[in-house]
Amino acid sequence: MVNFTHYLPTKFVFGRGVENQVGEEVKKLGATKVLIHYGGGSAVRSGLIARVENSLDAAGIAHVSLGGAMPNPRDTKVYEGIELIRREKVDFLLAVGGGSAIDSAKAMAIGALYDGDFWDFYSGKAVPEKSLPKGVVLTMAAAGSESSNSSVIMQESTKMKRGLRVELNRPLLAIMNPELTMTLPVYQTACGATDIMAHIMERYFTTVEDCDLTDRLCEGAMTAVIRAARIAVKDPKDYDARAQLMWASTIAHNDTVGVGRVMDFASHQIEHELSGMYDVAHGAGLAVVFPAWMRYNLPKHTMRFAQFAVRVWGCQMDFEHPEKTALAGIEAHESWLREIGMPLTLKELGADPKDIPELAKKTKRTNPDGTVGKFEALNTADIEAILHIADR
Amino acid sequence: MVNFTHYLPTKFVFGRGVENQVGEEVKKLGATKVLIHYGGGSAVRSGLIARVENSLDAAGIAHVSLGGAMPNPRDTKVYEGIELIRREKVDFLLAVGGGSAIDSAKAMAIGALYDGDFWDFYSGKAVPEKSLPKGVVLTMAAAGSESSNSSVIMQESTKMKRGLRVELNRPLLAIMNPELTMTLPVYQTACGATDIMAHIMERYFTTVEDCDLTDRLCEGAMTAVIRAARIAVKDPKDYDARAQLMWASTIAHNDTVGVGRVMDFASHQIEHELSGMYDVAHGAGLAVVFPAWMRYNLPKHTMRFAQFAVRVWGCQMDFEHPEKTALAGIEAHESWLREIGMPLTLKELGADPKDIPELAKKTKRTNPDGTVGKFEALNTADIEAILHIADR
Repeated sequence: MVNFTHYLPTKFVFGRGVENQVGEEVKKLGATKVLIHYGGGSAVRSGLIARVENSLDAAGIAHVSLGGAMPNPRDTKVYEGIELIRREKVDFLLAVGGGSAIDSAKAMAIGALYDGDFWDFYSGKAVPEKSLPKGVVLTMAAAGSESSNSSVIMQESTKMKRGLRVELNRPLLAIMNPELTMTLPVYQTACGATDIMAHIMERYFTTVEDCDLTDRLCEGAMTAVIRAARIAVKDPKDYDARAQLMWASTIAHNDTVGVGRVMDFASHQIEHELSGMYDVAHGAGLAVVFPAWMRYNLPKHTMRFAQFAVRVWGCQMDFEHPEKTALAGIEAHESWLREIGMPLTLKELGADPKDIPELAKKTKRTNPDGTVGKFEALNTADIEAILHIADR
Repeated sequence: MVNFTHYLPTKFVFGRGVENQVGEEVKKLGATKVLIHYGGGSAVRSGLIARVENSLDAAGIAHVSLGGAMPNPRDTKVYEGIELIRREKVDFLLAVGGGSAIDSAKAMAIGALYDGDFWDFYSGKAVPEKSLPKGVVLTMAAAGSESSNSSVIMQESTKMKRGLRVELNRPLLAIMNPELTMTLPVYQTACGATDIMAHIMERYFTTVEDCDLTDRLCEGAMTAVIRAARIAVKDPKDYDARAQLMWASTIAHNDTVGVGRVMDFASHQIEHELSGMYDVAHGAGLAVVFPAWMRYNLPKHTMRFAQFAVRVWGCQMDFEHPEKTALAGIEAHESWLREIGMPLTLKELGADPKDIPELAKKTKRTNPDGTVGKFEALNTADIEAILHIADR
């Protein structure tokens, strides 16, 4: 286990009907003027925005709204939000939605207090020093942005997605009613479950030794996600399954199951280029990239993948041929993705194999030597090879 | 899953050598004058107190000290601390030690800001409204008090132990270096592991349905504790095992593995009377009470105990006779307790079976109808029956 610092400032209010407590909770945080940032019209049509506004009104808190948060959230919307925040003297941001609305709100919250271009933080030119306080009313179990330190934004002009991971990004409040996710389309539910699994897997596949406790927490969380996703895609109104997925989304990406480990995140970086270039859902892109990444890394990390197969997927260990067990785990993972309706190939994403060299070249390198990933440091040739595995 | 609110204000700094960061971290919290509260002389002799004082000095923070925190911490020491805090105008409490030092510091922190007798809060006469901020340098993996909302104090005159669970009790800082636990006697290490297991089990055994995710987190944490305790009692210098136990102590009792569940806590209440009357270690008392509690409840909750047996202890499910599997799990638990050196009987604690009626009568009832426990509500006859099982 490596040394770590772990601090989660987020207060979670979880369960049926909790969105009606948002005014009271935001008031406790000292807010006087709130920007409500949400996505499409469904939050308005369902009456959720009205309930949130009523709750703020009841607590005597002024508010303005900005809709239009989109999947793969755009820098253009962030600029719009920053201008509104400054004009309206907003002192608290409330994202109502999933990862896109929340990631946008995080970018607005640091951008509004910065004299330069907020993109400086995402391109690595500057490090943010302050942020407006933020809260979330969550409507989708996926990105874990409700308490993570992460935000990902797409630059519209270049189609480049870039992430920013800083502690300032963590929301102070997460209002989480699993019922709000019951109306999500099955495909989005499955994309969310895939993203949750991927967040855990980015932590699970580590070369840090002596992480038995967090190994077990990761394995337990993955086992629960696999079961709950199967139920939720068949019966979208199952509160139990929705609740497991919603809480799993949170702990998957706020380090509850990952302290003391070194995260990989190569699959996420590769996927960012896919969804940037083809505007596919992040979860769908991960469903294509992660199995290919596992197949590519299997020979060097057989026992790790065998552990994944046995403990998460319930495979029987083949002690004579551990590599067969390792492969069986990856295949079980792929079957689960199929079962919940996810794609497994570049073709299904509408991606052109001819773009592989460009996708590989553009993938952001997070290691000083120009590679990406900590479990295995990948160079351009490795990334191309992984994308070729996904071209099946 | 039941609705819940979850908020952990504790910042965790975990790993080798982190005690040297205490001054800097306490300074960030705005402290100017610190009361260091610690236990016996070992923290002084080992040089730990000197390192903590040096770190505070380097950060320019004034400090005073109060030693003498004892297992089953006494109200008399709390009164002494409150007086010292007021006299010295202390604005931050730093407990250096395990649950006893931390629980005392929690009591001092609310007592110092209260005009009446701090015991009012523990006897249920009053509810605390404010507390001085607190931090911890942890030297023992056991009580989980480093981020829990719980504090247990013994009234010296009556030998009554009473707990106080309020959010104000949570420390803001936990400095956790597993190396500091390497010098603990084997018996205390085992008592700590038993306490950690018990904290998870108090949450695991619930009648709330649809808790698959937290079931899995509890099971994973217990599996890791079982392994790490076995290693730590044989090789006290094993950093890996010490680190797993230390982090497990934290997540076992701060609700990380328990959100959305209803906790039982009957075994803890029964044990408080045992350690109050005979001054035995809390963990040793739990080693005697918990298996007896399980055996007593087995017939009504066979499948729950079978799940515990299969998932935590690796027992094979006997589908024809689930009750045999359930019993095998309890027996495996008892074998583990024996293996790490824990007692299993009242006799080994030096308890007199003649005291059973008094112990049962004194046990604090937390349910409105005069019973204790949520998994099964126990009356006086039930508690007596459980203690008779432990009289073996």
